[in-house]
Amino acid sequence: MPFDFETVIDRRHTNSAKWNVQPGELPMWIADMDFQTAPAITAALKKRAAFGVFGYEEIPTAYYEAVADWWATEHHFRPQVDWLMFCTGVVPAISSIVRKMTTPGDNILVQAPVYNIFYHSIENNGRHTLSSDLVEQDGQYQIDFKDLEQKLADPLTTMMILCNPQNPIGIVWSREILQRLGELALKHHVLVLADEIHCDLTLNGHDYTPFSSLSAPVAANSISCVSPSKTFNVAALHAATLIMPDQTIRERVSRGVNNDELAEPNSFAIPGSLAAYQEGHAWVAALRTKIAANQRQLQQFIAAELPSVKVIEAQATYLIWLDISAVATDANDLATFIRAKTGLFLSAGDVYRGNGSHFLRINIACPTAELTDGLQRLQAGIDAYQQQ
Amino acid sequence: MPFDFETVIDRRHTNSAKWNVQPGELPMWIADMDFQTAPAITAALKKRAAFGVFGYEEIPTAYYEAVADWWATEHHFRPQVDWLMFCTGVVPAISSIVRKMTTPGDNILVQAPVYNIFYHSIENNGRHTLSSDLVEQDGQYQIDFKDLEQKLADPLTTMMILCNPQNPIGIVWSREILQRLGELALKHHVLVLADEIHCDLTLNGHDYTPFSSLSAPVAANSISCVSPSKTFNVAALHAATLIMPDQTIRERVSRGVNNDELAEPNSFAIPGSLAAYQEGHAWVAALRTKIAANQRQLQQFIAAELPSVKVIEAQATYLIWLDISAVATDANDLATFIRAKTGLFLSAGDVYRGNGSHFLRINIACPTAELTDGLQRLQAGIDAYQQQ
Ligand SMILES: Cc1ncc(COP(=O)(O)O)c(C=O)c1O
Ligand SMILES: Cc1ncc(COP(=O)(O)O)c(C=O)c1O
Repeated sequence: MPFDFETVIDRRHTNSAKWNVQPGELPMWIADMDFQTAPAITAALKKRAAFGVFGYEEIPTAYYEAVADWWATEHHFRPQVDWLMFCTGVVPAISSIVRKMTTPGDNILVQAPVYNIFYHSIENNGRHTLSSDLVEQDGQYQIDFKDLEQKLADPLTTMMILCNPQNPIGIVWSREILQRLGELALKHHVLVLADEIHCDLTLNGHDYTPFSSLSAPVAANSISCVSPSKTFNVAALHAATLIMPDQTIRERVSRGVNNDELAEPNSFAIPGSLAAYQEGHAWVAALRTKIAANQRQLQQFIAAELPSVKVIEAQATYLIWLDISAVATDANDLATFIRAKTGLFLSAGDVYRGNGSHFLRINIACPTAELTDGLQRLQAGIDAYQQQ
Repeated sequence: MPFDFETVIDRRHTNSAKWNVQPGELPMWIADMDFQTAPAITAALKKRAAFGVFGYEEIPTAYYEAVADWWATEHHFRPQVDWLMFCTGVVPAISSIVRKMTTPGDNILVQAPVYNIFYHSIENNGRHTLSSDLVEQDGQYQIDFKDLEQKLADPLTTMMILCNPQNPIGIVWSREILQRLGELALKHHVLVLADEIHCDLTLNGHDYTPFSSLSAPVAANSISCVSPSKTFNVAALHAATLIMPDQTIRERVSRGVNNDELAEPNSFAIPGSLAAYQEGHAWVAALRTKIAANQRQLQQFIAAELPSVKVIEAQATYLIWLDISAVATDANDLATFIRAKTGLFLSAGDVYRGNGSHFLRINIACPTAELTDGLQRLQAGIDAYQQQ
């Protein structure tokens, strides 16, 4: 492999949120990888630092062209350059769009179990969460379209936040499902906010469909959020892009994002993103291979050593959803026990709501040595839990 | 001088907002300096870039200690570490505090002419601007305390935004005036938001008084905003600090800033700020000397060549307020003429409101060669304007 995904990096004492743990603990929770980013990005950031002047910046057209080109090459769909708008992050964009495009007391539809911060963006801004829970059968999650339509039809439901690829389950929604969902939203006057932050990390040939590539009326009723942050492990680069095919939506959201002071790039956001989108293709391909290999290692280990745990196959993301219902009734209790016993820090599934309290989420974006250590701790923790 | 403030840096085509101008134009408008930042900051940013991992970060206590130490050394007052809170910028903080600590329709008091973006933070969030205009006499601006108290006493006035040192006039308010103003605000239940972003750039022995160093009850009724951004020319580092002596205010503002997604640092904000506050003392001292020298050059030039223009002596900042009332009735018209004729891009004073339409603001934070060029263009522009 031409890139290094095997060197263990010491991230303690680097102000890392993930690695703010006790000595000896192993964090495999927050969506942040234990890999260095693509060399081209590091080189661009070093160059930007060396320039030595860090005044107010504007977004060059080259930025939007690089985003559009990346989508054309990686996802076979080229959004128009004028559909695109910079924002300091995906969660900042979601919070701002919730404030601008809905009013307090509105329902915002989600599909639990889903990325927990959606609930913060909705509820901390005084809106209600309305979930059309995903329905699990034999390790497969599905949309209950009847329930979904009923909830979209509620006149107080004004927005839906879709997660594709889906965190924490790793589902990549098909074009057919997205089109059907988009048509229902349109019919019931519900704006679709598609969080596509994990879209570059699809695995084993699963292809992602950009929401903005659906039929023109469905795409016009949507805002998609993308970013190099998960793809390239640059969450604190603070760079994201909104894809908005409709001009009225674009102008309203632009006002909201500017008003919320989330529209201006820091000195490194643009050079880092340009390097990512212009020079990062080979690195991401190698990363996907590494993540797929890590998923296989986890699946084999759990099948052999922890048959009471069921692995939900991730079609995308480096986050794996582990069904622990045969081990514990409360994932939070189990996660706390495992951490205390072995130092392994996982995410308990209840924060994602839905049927999440029967699940743990493990982040496998790390060198093999770390993953192997994590799996052994998981086994030791679960064995001890079952013996108690 | 051990630091270089004389090399002209080519900032065209670097995405700089200031330098997004036509070929041959010379921008002396936005508050952004044409100097490289302190070498210690550039070194810290290069080192951070080289680390290669850019995941989610937390604010270390060392950051707050560096801020407190800087104030102790530079401003003879050490705020308590637990009074401090990180934010991505001063304007982001102001907008967020306006939203959190006042309600739509409230009056927010300012003292025009003042930094124009205050009006955006107030009015784009649906609040009213109420100005107790500063009163000018013989080139000196003063507070009309009778008018100020009357406006503070309006029950719909819930916040006052104070600018100290004052942009665009360059006033450094005395401890006595600040205490008097703070007592009036307290008496009338008006929260004081003190924007102290220019506080490190005082000139010719003028000393700045931190609002948080006033009497305990007055300080408790305040929020001060500080940042290395103006001091070190690192606006796009996206780092600022709020000083809040009162715990209830702190917790409310913290909730607002977090909710508005302005609480998390990018990868470079903390290392850059640490280098600034820990190693930047000598650089800032040299910078102040350079700015004072530039102000003298401007004063001498205008006295000799443009006697119809009156220079308001700046006690702080690198922004000089030029009274052009003897030249034109409308600063905007004059600024447009000068730019078209000579390429010199200044700020017309009307955006600052108050009596600003009789003023131009010029940014003199640049190498001597650039300043000399700017002054010659100013003379050519005004001469041509007067001849037309
Ligand atoms: C679905 C999803 N959206 C957004 C984010 C965070 O985005 P940002 O860091 O750009 O705010 C994450 C991070 O885990 C995520 O999983
Ligand atoms: C008084 C004042 N406050 C705030 C700012 C901008 O602060 P920031 O870039 O941190 O938002 C400026 C910039 O000119 C200013 O003059």
